[in-house]
Amino acid sequence: MEFRTDLALEVRESFEEDNIEISGVALKEETGKMKGIKVTTVDIFNEDGAQAMGKPRGKYITIEIPELLNEEEKCRTATEKEIEAQILKLMNGKKTKSILVIGLGNRDITADALGPLVVEELLVTRHLFKEFGEKFGEKHGYQNVSAMAPGVMAQTGMETMEMIKGIVRETKPDLVLAIDALAAKSVHRLNTTIQLTDTGICPGAGIGNNRQALNEESIGRPVLALGVPTVVDAGTIVREGMEQFAKSRPDFKREAEEFLQRDFTGFVKNMFVTPKNIDCSIRYVSETVADGINRFIKSK
Amino acid sequence: MEFRTDLALEVRESFEEDNIEISGVALKEETGKMKGIKVTTVDIFNEDGAQAMGKPRGKYITIEIPELLNEEEKCRTATEKEIEAQILKLMNGKKTKSILVIGLGNRDITADALGPLVVEELLVTRHLFKEFGEKFGEKHGYQNVSAMAPGVMAQTGMETMEMIKGIVRETKPDLVLAIDALAAKSVHRLNTTIQLTDTGICPGAGIGNNRQALNEESIGRPVLALGVPTVVDAGTIVREGMEQFAKSRPDFKREAEEFLQRDFTGFVKNMFVTPKNIDCSIRYVSETVADGINRFIKSK
Amino acid sequence: MEFRTDLALEVRESFEEDNIEISGVALKEETGKMKGIKVTTVDIFNEDGAQAMGKPRGKYITIEIPELLNEEEKCRTATEKEIEAQILKLMNGKKTKSILVIGLGNRDITADALGPLVVEELLVTRHLFKEFGEKFGEKHGYQNVSAMAPGVMAQTGMETMEMIKGIVRETKPDLVLAIDALAAKSVHRLNTTIQLTDTGICPGAGIGNNRQALNEESIGRPVLALGVPTVVDAGTIVREGMEQFAKSRPDFKREAEEFLQRDFTGFVKNMFVTPKNIDCSIRYVSETVADGINRFIKSK
Amino acid sequence: MEFRTDLALEVRESFEEDNIEISGVALKEETGKMKGIKVTTVDIFNEDGAQAMGKPRGKYITIEIPELLNEEEKCRTATEKEIEAQILKLMNGKKTKSILVIGLGNRDITADALGPLVVEELLVTRHLFKEFGEKFGEKHGYQNVSAMAPGVMAQTGMETMEMIKGIVRETKPDLVLAIDALAAKSVHRLNTTIQLTDTGICPGAGIGNNRQALNEESIGRPVLALGVPTVVDAGTIVREGMEQFAKSRPDFKREAEEFLQRDFTGFVKNMFVTPKNIDCSIRYVSETVADGINRFIKSK
Repeated sequence: MEFRTDLALEVRESFEEDNIEISGVALKEETGKMKGIKVTTVDIFNEDGAQAMGKPRGKYITIEIPELLNEEEKCRTATEKEIEAQILKLMNGKKTKSILVIGLGNRDITADALGPLVVEELLVTRHLFKEFGEKFGEKHGYQNVSAMAPGVMAQTGMETMEMIKGIVRETKPDLVLAIDALAAKSVHRLNTTIQLTDTGICPGAGIGNNRQALNEESIGRPVLALGVPTVVDAGTIVREGMEQFAKSRPDFKREAEEFLQRDFTGFVKNMFVTPKNIDCSIRYVSETVADGINRFIKSK
Repeated sequence: MEFRTDLALEVRESFEEDNIEISGVALKEETGKMKGIKVTTVDIFNEDGAQAMGKPRGKYITIEIPELLNEEEKCRTATEKEIEAQILKLMNGKKTKSILVIGLGNRDITADALGPLVVEELLVTRHLFKEFGEKFGEKHGYQNVSAMAPGVMAQTGMETMEMIKGIVRETKPDLVLAIDALAAKSVHRLNTTIQLTDTGICPGAGIGNNRQALNEESIGRPVLALGVPTVVDAGTIVREGMEQFAKSRPDFKREAEEFLQRDFTGFVKNMFVTPKNIDCSIRYVSETVADGINRFIKSK
Repeated sequence: MEFRTDLALEVRESFEEDNIEISGVALKEETGKMKGIKVTTVDIFNEDGAQAMGKPRGKYITIEIPELLNEEEKCRTATEKEIEAQILKLMNGKKTKSILVIGLGNRDITADALGPLVVEELLVTRHLFKEFGEKFGEKHGYQNVSAMAPGVMAQTGMETMEMIKGIVRETKPDLVLAIDALAAKSVHRLNTTIQLTDTGICPGAGIGNNRQALNEESIGRPVLALGVPTVVDAGTIVREGMEQFAKSRPDFKREAEEFLQRDFTGFVKNMFVTPKNIDCSIRYVSETVADGINRFIKSK
Repeated sequence: MEFRTDLALEVRESFEEDNIEISGVALKEETGKMKGIKVTTVDIFNEDGAQAMGKPRGKYITIEIPELLNEEEKCRTATEKEIEAQILKLMNGKKTKSILVIGLGNRDITADALGPLVVEELLVTRHLFKEFGEKFGEKHGYQNVSAMAPGVMAQTGMETMEMIKGIVRETKPDLVLAIDALAAKSVHRLNTTIQLTDTGICPGAGIGNNRQALNEESIGRPVLALGVPTVVDAGTIVREGMEQFAKSRPDFKREAEEFLQRDFTGFVKNMFVTPKNIDCSIRYVSETVADGINRFIKSK
């Protein structure tokens, strides 16, 4: 892999740049709930596609809202409704009885705090169902929702997957929805893009480790994942600079490519790139995502 | 029960005031690691004692450090060593292989944040044991420690006990150590008293609910609990005012007692009392407790 | 003074209980923007009134919203509009050019964090006026607003008044709006009552100290204050318990009163009473107050 | 300027690379309080030096502690003592009567929170001097210290300089010590380097704006600044990648340099690079710096 991205859309784009056909992958682009919102679905429908893309089979829906951070009410509402609609679509239009939302990531690192911040703003209802019975949901039109932010291994000493497995076994939700901060290739996608997928996620992969996947196979429940790219790997940035050079001077393309082959980004290992106003962006996008999920929770 | 307290010591004291003998309960008072530190052990050794005290059988060790909040280095170190020694004593001098520390309570309520704050300061090592094997512990003399702050039901929609059960089943610690903020009867004990017990604890009981106990019976692991009183129930304060009146005017003792029989504290239901500088006190006592536990973790 | 309250309304009520006439004080009760919201104006219009009330001359508007913490959208919006309207009324319907909002209190103590929390949610614009000129305000219909949370003396070593004076002299706002958590007499008023006044406020008085007032006299700018009671003094609670006893047993009224004369509440000195769910309440009421002020800032 | 750095040492190094002599700048390297700690003093002693370096005249002391983040007690203590000693050296060995410490930066952005975090851990005493008189300092051997974290303009609407000027005028400290997070050129210096200078600092410059300096000229008090690099500008990283290419392929040096002349880093404008574990590093280095300053405050 030439660069690091958690967005299926960016993986797909890299093939386009190289004019390569991929079998097993279908692409669909639509306009969202508002002009300016773009919804792209990458459907990896067979093993060939999964191999080529380096990602498990399933649907990857990307919502791009370039204007999101302008903080206009209209754009925010449209984004929330888009999230609601796309979650429902990934569930084939059928609601489950109970959902456990997992806010992955480290609350103490601004760029990694998306999951915990979303969980803080969620409408949690499972204890009310327990207290008032199923009629609670019918009366208010709410779903049965529990939520947690398990923290990261350096804080707990436990694999996030161990904690989730244990809690799922005990509380038996019908569906798990995992929220996480992602890495993108392009800086312009940071905090303005939402990826939804029905393939699950790898907790902790976001920081470069190879961890056990959180998916239906590993926990026995369908797992949706919602992610927002908040960082770009520093090595990717360096590589992109080199590529711009190669493009501007086609006569050195070969040399630049040779150079790019070598692992010359070691000097920025374990470094990532964030926008300077990340604190505001992350708060705003977390609240928008939470309100989108809350719409889903409240809708009948 | 005439007043609310989570301290076995204060329950015991209430009998003394009334000059009542209690069978099944042994009391031992000692000086701690430093003059001015008092260690009292209440041992409830049979069912009669448990009935009389309204608490499960087991040992309740209370460390009182009236000078703790003066923030003197010497006093703090002595307190930390006392915590280390008393944990070891409750374990009959034998260390277990692995411990899961649970920081109960709500991080967003200053007076209830003790558990989460202690967990933040702990030396967590379980993931290092997993990575480097048992020799990690031998080399550094550390125990295998994991830790978590599960939050409260209003945040997660789950009973704390459900989360703990699931995680214990998955990660299989040999011992659970639960940390929680407690309620005391006397304001002078707030943030200057530490109770250690081998009987477990009821998560959420601290806020007046009747919850399932976290103990060996419920989770299949020995459970130690360490608590610090940080609040007094507002009703208890009102009652204490009345009692002072009754003492100062013995001629009205009967009337005051009649009045006290009636539930006249309803107007402060769900209210608690904290010191005005609770933010500083809770931070200081949390760090002291965490460092005491860290001493225990590091000691061979 | 028999009990501690920062609410002019509660001081006024204490006279009613005793059937005492007060000259120099006018009282007006109205229904607010929604049924269930009560707006009471206590107008202390001469020195006699100020003496009797123990408060400086001026208008004290109390908005009572008993249903606020039910978190209904409709009630919240009505409360925000009420805040907007009453601020404007205190300014005699005339907007100033620029406002400095001061969030008093200690962000680390849940019950004292109202001021800092409100400031965090405010629409701050002064730097945009500086960058884009006066036309910025005309275009967007915003007022020129700056804001700060100065912290408390134990954190800064400085009197809050020193900091405010210095900043006012340097940034020259036309009006200061101070936000602070208050103490009430009655627990049912906690987090459901908003007091607005044109008399200024004493920073730090909330914790029992005698400090210099923040008012037009001391800083040369009109000072509005908006406060929400979040605590009851523990001594007040004890006293109220005694009073209930005295009422229930009129035959002991004299003895109880004698007892109340003596300072028998020393055992809860520097203690305060808060509701158990103070973290949720304070967040909700802070956001409501901030949105009310934001409405004022945005309205032409 | 070819890259962005706030470290005088890195500016100086860039001349070495190019084998250029600089008049007006003296360099001194020493071993610190412990093997492995390096202390370098860059003394810009005339206008030529200031021009060449692009920095005001004065002393810039850089403490490099490559092992700091290993969190060894010995190394931390040595670092704290080094900070104490170098502050005293910048003051020519003479203590002032009173100090105002300013924690610059945005507490909500992990990498920018150094200043506010240091201020939180400081020993603040000015209010005790006010209460107990000068004998307080003599008795305890403390200096008169006040401290504040003014926040950033987007939060307050005010220039940080306006706030500081106002507060200095009102509270009249003899010396101002400003703490801020800096940008470095080299990632290996992040969170392991401390720069101390007697030339003051530009609040807000850290985020790329041209602001008024905080120095003796602007506020009428000597200003020391202590900074720790916590980020590298993303453009600098890209440029460094290019330079590595140019070095590895000297035949393309000219083309690469041509390319570097053009502003080709626009695609990462307003982006910065931080280590993935920035939350732990920033906390550890903030506490170390605070304890170093506290040693200075306590020493006679």
